Amino acid sequence: MNANPVFSLHIPTRILFGCGEIKKLATETLPGKKAMIIISGGTSMRKYGYLDKVIGFLTENDVASIVYDKILPNPIKSHVMEAAAICREQGCDFIIGLGGGSTIDSAKAIAVMACNDGDFWNYVTGGSGKGRPVTKALPIIAIPTTAGTGTEADPWAVITNEEKQEKIGFGCSLTFPALSIIDPELMISIPPHLTAYQGFDAFFHAAEGFIANCATPISDLYALEAIRLLYKYLPVAVNDGKNLKARAKVAWASTLAGLVEATSSCTSEHSMEHAMSAYYPQLPHGAGLIALSEAYFETFRNDCMKRYMKMADVMTQQKSNRPSDFIDALARMKKECHVDNIKLSEWGLKEEDLPKMVQNARDTMGGLFTLDPRPLTDDEVLNIYRQSYK
Amino acid sequence: MNANPVFSLHIPTRILFGCGEIKKLATETLPGKKAMIIISGGTSMRKYGYLDKVIGFLTENDVASIVYDKILPNPIKSHVMEAAAICREQGCDFIIGLGGGSTIDSAKAIAVMACNDGDFWNYVTGGSGKGRPVTKALPIIAIPTTAGTGTEADPWAVITNEEKQEKIGFGCSLTFPALSIIDPELMISIPPHLTAYQGFDAFFHAAEGFIANCATPISDLYALEAIRLLYKYLPVAVNDGKNLKARAKVAWASTLAGLVEATSSCTSEHSMEHAMSAYYPQLPHGAGLIALSEAYFETFRNDCMKRYMKMADVMTQQKSNRPSDFIDALARMKKECHVDNIKLSEWGLKEEDLPKMVQNARDTMGGLFTLDPRPLTDDEVLNIYRQSYK
Repeated sequence: MNANPVFSLHIPTRILFGCGEIKKLATETLPGKKAMIIISGGTSMRKYGYLDKVIGFLTENDVASIVYDKILPNPIKSHVMEAAAICREQGCDFIIGLGGGSTIDSAKAIAVMACNDGDFWNYVTGGSGKGRPVTKALPIIAIPTTAGTGTEADPWAVITNEEKQEKIGFGCSLTFPALSIIDPELMISIPPHLTAYQGFDAFFHAAEGFIANCATPISDLYALEAIRLLYKYLPVAVNDGKNLKARAKVAWASTLAGLVEATSSCTSEHSMEHAMSAYYPQLPHGAGLIALSEAYFETFRNDCMKRYMKMADVMTQQKSNRPSDFIDALARMKKECHVDNIKLSEWGLKEEDLPKMVQNARDTMGGLFTLDPRPLTDDEVLNIYRQSYK
Repeated sequence: MNANPVFSLHIPTRILFGCGEIKKLATETLPGKKAMIIISGGTSMRKYGYLDKVIGFLTENDVASIVYDKILPNPIKSHVMEAAAICREQGCDFIIGLGGGSTIDSAKAIAVMACNDGDFWNYVTGGSGKGRPVTKALPIIAIPTTAGTGTEADPWAVITNEEKQEKIGFGCSLTFPALSIIDPELMISIPPHLTAYQGFDAFFHAAEGFIANCATPISDLYALEAIRLLYKYLPVAVNDGKNLKARAKVAWASTLAGLVEATSSCTSEHSMEHAMSAYYPQLPHGAGLIALSEAYFETFRNDCMKRYMKMADVMTQQKSNRPSDFIDALARMKKECHVDNIKLSEWGLKEEDLPKMVQNARDTMGGLFTLDPRPLTDDEVLNIYRQSYK
């Protein structure tokens, strides 16, 4: 990073954080009178009563709502298009994403397609997307019930074009949520393995954003704090899911990592993972990242040594004197979270698929490769995939 | 602070930071076609060519401008009212504050009074202000040429009602700048003693915001980084004003301290200083704060010991084990910046004035006393004034 860096900061989102804050939905000034609530196709938003809570608080606030409940863990374009059509028909004023990153990302894409004609891929940049400018979108409210994507604090929406096997992040200033409510009490029911996958997603947003060649003084501040908190509290949250303090620290770290995404960027580790889960949608994004991470970070060990040592400093709370301290600390953290032995083959990945992953990663999210500490060759990318494959 | 704190974050300002960034005025989308530029009654904005630069870049961007050039170092309400009347007559779309905190704060107040009827004091809360709600304001652009107030990153405008000797901070979500451009190259000409006064103002925004009972995890992050940077780089900038790296670090620390103001709050040290400069407008705000600071922070030494030690940690980069390490480090920093011997009497303050300062501080900015680590008695406040008086 330059000694006199030039950078910018613009996070227009109003963020409300804390246990019980979901109740603010009843009292905040909301951007309209009719909401479309986006939830996943799973059962948890109803089972744990979160959907009823949200609808109840909206009603108290004199806001009507309809629900779209089909979103998949790796959300797909056809659901975005279907929900946007319903949203127009029903005259909704704004979109609420309630759930994990998939539903909030979908809410962002739906907010765009409720106001713009044609296909969502007309607006996506990368892959076969046409990259047309977006000049309007409905307001978005994000209510995460997982701690991982940080999407509540950034403009990004990652959607898979299921016909083309392209999983691409899209975003602009209009896709920052207008309001995000992060209530750690809504995260208490997440099972240990998902807590770990999601928490590591946040960790990699921060760590990639810290080594990215577009890192800035403000993204560094958010990143190191997220890394510190996750190293300390993610193992606690994984091993004792009812520990509300740990849940809150992890949730805040995830939001901080979202701020990193909004001020720096993730790097090609994310491109490489997106290629895997574009082909194998059943592979959780966080699990894919965990599998790639040791080989990925090992590759850059000698390219940004000071930054690796700074990350190790805040993780171990001891002065580091070699870059591999970071990789050692990462390995320890995986072990404490019981994710040190992820087998990609268990999600159906075949070793012979790996070369086509290299191409997909370059084609769909090639831009992130330009933000790595140094450019990777195709051989190096394939090598990272190979080392990560079990 | 609570183990599971509830807090919010909302900084709608778009911040552009870096050497040379002033040129972005020529290319950014601006909020209208005619600007009112607010500068001080001094000569520096013209002498150093900053005003010409701004007008030139606006012209390139197809934006007309008029200039209001009367603002005093402690800006007064009658100038706000006069400029707002001109702004309405001339049909300006937005307000640019170019200069120190006084001009940017005035720009904010003018932006409010260009859209609201009656007197500015109808909208101010505190003192004899009527606290009426503000529902509209013109967009504001902040271009600081000093590093101290942080007003470019917060909603606050401190204006003196010269008839009533009330110096009060006012702000709401509409008085966040829409755009702030912080270009350290514009700060190179500030003389050493003003560099020190302004830099310590930023330091106290951060340190007060860190010990305030409304501090939050996000304000703490901004505050500790501002404190770290100022301890390290303010003496360099004071002693070598042409050192652009030090200027940039101090400027960024000042913006961070503004973010502290937007997410936590300053405390009664600021109320106490405002009372002094309301009576003696020739007293620079930073000099007043420096004079008060040792007695002020000494008063709370045993009330937030951990927080004092954390501040000492980031200042000295050594593990602190007693709260007075912070006060020692503060004293060292003053000495290195040649402001360890501020004599309030040199600005005309009389010792017999001190009791009425206690009353003015309570009357006009009493709210900040409720944010101190613990409530101060009037005797304690008077005692702080007495110990600070030379």
